[in-house]
Amino acid sequence: MIEPGDLKALRMFDGMAPAEIWDVLIRKAPGTERWSPRLSETDPKRDLERAADVGARFIIPGDDEWPEQVDVLAEAGQLARRAGVPFGLWARGPLNLRTALDQSVAMVGSRASSSYGEHVAAELSSGLADNGFVVVSGGAYGIDAAAHRGALAASGATIAVLASGVDKFYPRRNSALLSLIAEQGLIVSELPLGFPPTKLRFLARNRLIAAATRGVVVIEAAARSGALNSAGWAEQCGRAVLAVPGPVTSRMSEGTHLLIRERGAVLVTNVAEIIEAISPLGTHLAPHRVVPTTPYDQLDHDHRRTLDAVPAHKAASAERIAIDAGLDLSTTRECLEYLADLSLVQRDETGWHLPPTTIEPDTTP
Amino acid sequence: MIEPGDLKALRMFDGMAPAEIWDVLIRKAPGTERWSPRLSETDPKRDLERAADVGARFIIPGDDEWPEQVDVLAEAGQLARRAGVPFGLWARGPLNLRTALDQSVAMVGSRASSSYGEHVAAELSSGLADNGFVVVSGGAYGIDAAAHRGALAASGATIAVLASGVDKFYPRRNSALLSLIAEQGLIVSELPLGFPPTKLRFLARNRLIAAATRGVVVIEAAARSGALNSAGWAEQCGRAVLAVPGPVTSRMSEGTHLLIRERGAVLVTNVAEIIEAISPLGTHLAPHRVVPTTPYDQLDHDHRRTLDAVPAHKAASAERIAIDAGLDLSTTRECLEYLADLSLVQRDETGWHLPPTTIEPDTTP
Repeated sequence: MIEPGDLKALRMFDGMAPAEIWDVLIRKAPGTERWSPRLSETDPKRDLERAADVGARFIIPGDDEWPEQVDVLAEAGQLARRAGVPFGLWARGPLNLRTALDQSVAMVGSRASSSYGEHVAAELSSGLADNGFVVVSGGAYGIDAAAHRGALAASGATIAVLASGVDKFYPRRNSALLSLIAEQGLIVSELPLGFPPTKLRFLARNRLIAAATRGVVVIEAAARSGALNSAGWAEQCGRAVLAVPGPVTSRMSEGTHLLIRERGAVLVTNVAEIIEAISPLGTHLAPHRVVPTTPYDQLDHDHRRTLDAVPAHKAASAERIAIDAGLDLSTTRECLEYLADLSLVQRDETGWHLPPTTIEPDTTP
Repeated sequence: MIEPGDLKALRMFDGMAPAEIWDVLIRKAPGTERWSPRLSETDPKRDLERAADVGARFIIPGDDEWPEQVDVLAEAGQLARRAGVPFGLWARGPLNLRTALDQSVAMVGSRASSSYGEHVAAELSSGLADNGFVVVSGGAYGIDAAAHRGALAASGATIAVLASGVDKFYPRRNSALLSLIAEQGLIVSELPLGFPPTKLRFLARNRLIAAATRGVVVIEAAARSGALNSAGWAEQCGRAVLAVPGPVTSRMSEGTHLLIRERGAVLVTNVAEIIEAISPLGTHLAPHRVVPTTPYDQLDHDHRRTLDAVPAHKAASAERIAIDAGLDLSTTRECLEYLADLSLVQRDETGWHLPPTTIEPDTTP
């Protein structure tokens, strides 16, 4: 019943368990006037009954299921006035919250996403799930939904962190998806059951997603968006900020390009690069793109010049090749013999030519 | 008649003018056997006549038109064995080579480009031309051609640096484009007239493009490509390396993403960002994306909570709003009055509500 990120409450109730806080509040202790009006509508017993109805549980610091990494919020981002460790988290679903979040990646982005963004979100999310990662997002339209669906499609685990109570699915048209996540993954919120989302609750929820995961992957975000807010929280929490590029002609990729250009986000294009970025330094290194090398690459300058001068179809004499290569005849002959040993050129009674199947490497721009 | 980047020639003829080198070669001085075979087919007088026929001129170090920035090649990239300052440059077209290159940007990329890449190349090139920059490229299919065309479409100047003689247009299907460049811009090459391109000449040409310009913009490049070779030369010459991102689903953008991720290239998305990157530090700063701020952004936490709790349609009492905001009544009343002063809320006989035209800022992900 205390708003997420209410710094006055965090200061006043620092270190107290929810039951103790409740006790102070109902006694209307001096200094608690700020929170009195809501008391009339707050009933922890009813809350717990409602929670039981939907199979939700309340997890508080110190519990086995408490994800200790969110404690980083005690320090992070006080300036933004929405910080603070939640007093507790409501969770609904079969996963163990702490274990699931230990190996988790946040994937966030625009609600007004393009089909490109949704495709990439689903692909990356499936790939992360295949690699044992839990994909965390906000249950919204667009990138969030595509990320959840990608993980589910790969039979992986996914967590939706809501800005409303865990029984209050928002947006409504995502209800079927959120129900599936409640059955197979986890729905998490710091808001009590029944509470609707508000703008501030969305912003406060973003801090939780950032703090709870090992890194935030942003896929499509307009220049002003909740996804950039999540990235800001990830920076403040010391989590990896990763951004997927897109066409520069798309407004939806403006935010991710801005993160890479101006805020030091790591550009990622595939699952391996994401895993590298959220793993301890030096582990899980993404394979470098395999650049095919050709025998041509191994040749020195004179051999390449000679090879460049050998015609593809009709044969040429060593003398002709020497002129075209701009080399003296004895160097040219030596090079031709060497290239023949490598089967890069062939000799017949009329002279030297390339073997029939030579494919030119793409070294011209 | 000496191959571009022939280090043996560079060492032997260091500091000599082309006429002196020619003199040494025709005397068949000791140590010049390497270059003898081609003498039989070399005729400087005929070269100059052919040049006159197509209106080409030969520019050597020390000439008024010599672009001194290419002298960086005396030091750069010896390890790659294709370095060295050209002995001279053939130029064909109305522009002054030195003046044109002073304000130039290279734009290179894949021959097998996508329509996205070609669109972006043409747009950026037009924009650079509009800002007085000369766009330099290699005259190839794909990105090169789109870059040249974009500059021409904006009535701007463009230079094609070829891996063949300036009278030998390659690829042939770009002849019309290259003729137009010869009429309105410049065709440049270190190869004598009549010489065809070879693989090594393409690579040597790339070093010239990098050395002659203020920076290289790579738009679409496969993981192994001439465009990445150009970027490598730009690094070695101390020129800016800029890369335009694209869809991660496109193989054609793999090279540009690799440049950004692994080789420190600057991600650029528009003309202003390119100009910033190739201008002296602190000048021509690209405008930061204008992020619209709303009155909501200026509010402190309690005001936002109050505003979040004010209903959009039917009015609510201050008591109801206090409960929904989770604040005490007097704080809520103060916040409501303040919000009313800013016209963010309205009061009527039934209570408080939002003004009819309030548009929600997109702060939710």
